Amino acid sequence: MDLKGKFTHIFFDADDTLWENEQFFRDAEAQFAELLSDYTSADGVQQMLWQKQEENIPLFGYGSKTYMIGMTDAAMELCKGQLPEKIYYGIKKIITDLAFHPFELIEGVEDTLKALQGHYTMIVATKGDLTEQLGKYRQSGLDKYFHHCEVMENKDVKNYLELAARNDLEPQQILMVGNSVKSDIAPVVEIGGTAFHTPHEVIWVHEMMEMPQSDRIIEVGRIQDIVGYLI
Amino acid sequence: MDLKGKFTHIFFDADDTLWENEQFFRDAEAQFAELLSDYTSADGVQQMLWQKQEENIPLFGYGSKTYMIGMTDAAMELCKGQLPEKIYYGIKKIITDLAFHPFELIEGVEDTLKALQGHYTMIVATKGDLTEQLGKYRQSGLDKYFHHCEVMENKDVKNYLELAARNDLEPQQILMVGNSVKSDIAPVVEIGGTAFHTPHEVIWVHEMMEMPQSDRIIEVGRIQDIVGYLI
Repeated sequence: MDLKGKFTHIFFDADDTLWENEQFFRDAEAQFAELLSDYTSADGVQQMLWQKQEENIPLFGYGSKTYMIGMTDAAMELCKGQLPEKIYYGIKKIITDLAFHPFELIEGVEDTLKALQGHYTMIVATKGDLTEQLGKYRQSGLDKYFHHCEVMENKDVKNYLELAARNDLEPQQILMVGNSVKSDIAPVVEIGGTAFHTPHEVIWVHEMMEMPQSDRIIEVGRIQDIVGYLI
Repeated sequence: MDLKGKFTHIFFDADDTLWENEQFFRDAEAQFAELLSDYTSADGVQQMLWQKQEENIPLFGYGSKTYMIGMTDAAMELCKGQLPEKIYYGIKKIITDLAFHPFELIEGVEDTLKALQGHYTMIVATKGDLTEQLGKYRQSGLDKYFHHCEVMENKDVKNYLELAARNDLEPQQILMVGNSVKSDIAPVVEIGGTAFHTPHEVIWVHEMMEMPQSDRIIEVGRIQDIVGYLI
């Protein structure tokens, strides 16, 4: 498929597309299970945390503050209604460490952005907690390549229609690059946009979804492969 | 001062400019003091909460999730390191109620927006938690008047320069309407923009600041007074 000259803007997902993210959440989960290992098995802790996350995300949104509230809920239940400060401050440390984890760009990202710069208006379109996502955006050193960073509340059809309107684009002018079928690919294609899928080995259980059928989805093995389609 | 024809965009603060907000946080604080009244005085609870908020805001940003973490920190300390579930779930209820408080537009807001519609591109520029601020924006029913809603991480000089750039404006093209001298007036005027100050009787302690001297600040008694300056 030749996309040259067809688009003016490219939107990039951030977590696990531009930089590593999910792995750090999985590490935090393992630390949380260890913290509560006197109370139940690692599996038991994980089940309880997932259940609390399912309850809290619709209410509080994505990101590590919601994750902290979910961990505190889970710990309160596992500690039978009396939460010791050792556990609570342990949770707070896991979350603070998560916010300051070593930053790792995904291989090929910077070369890709450098190659596309000047040819397209590039915008980061990520979802999650505002403070957290903008913090990572600044820390990444990639802001020189982007017009700006949009932090979206969620990534469904409605949010992508709003994203297009906010940037004075028609929905079919959206060209998205991302690793999540559910968040970056399916809703974009549904509104008439085009998407590059850059797979990542660690996928959050909330993000799992079958790939839809569409000739407006391009599977690439590595992010730098998108350049050949675009310039 | 005649501003007619000088601006294309108007940015509106949201909390306590478009709708009531601070009062609900003060109510939540009173409920929190009541919840912990077996442990210490209302003053003691408030002092401890403020101290925790000062520590947490730089790390976690603004909004009610950070407020919940601050309340849990304060309660853990006041309960001497063993937090009973009654207190924790009490905090969670205060925060959930805060998220679903009855919505109150400030008088004159809708008439003001209706009068300006079609003459200016109007954008909400609020700070705080993304999920929470966008939730209020939608609930307000005011979205039909606005091009979009920007949730800013903070409202300092750097953030306003980014706001201008993101909207392809020069800093001196920023015309802001808001109730907070610290967040809506001083930084806008500092970068060369112009600001309407719409006072509100309840001011958060974090937002207190003396009014700077500038002929680009216009004090209005009620929000609808801005219309006469603009069309």
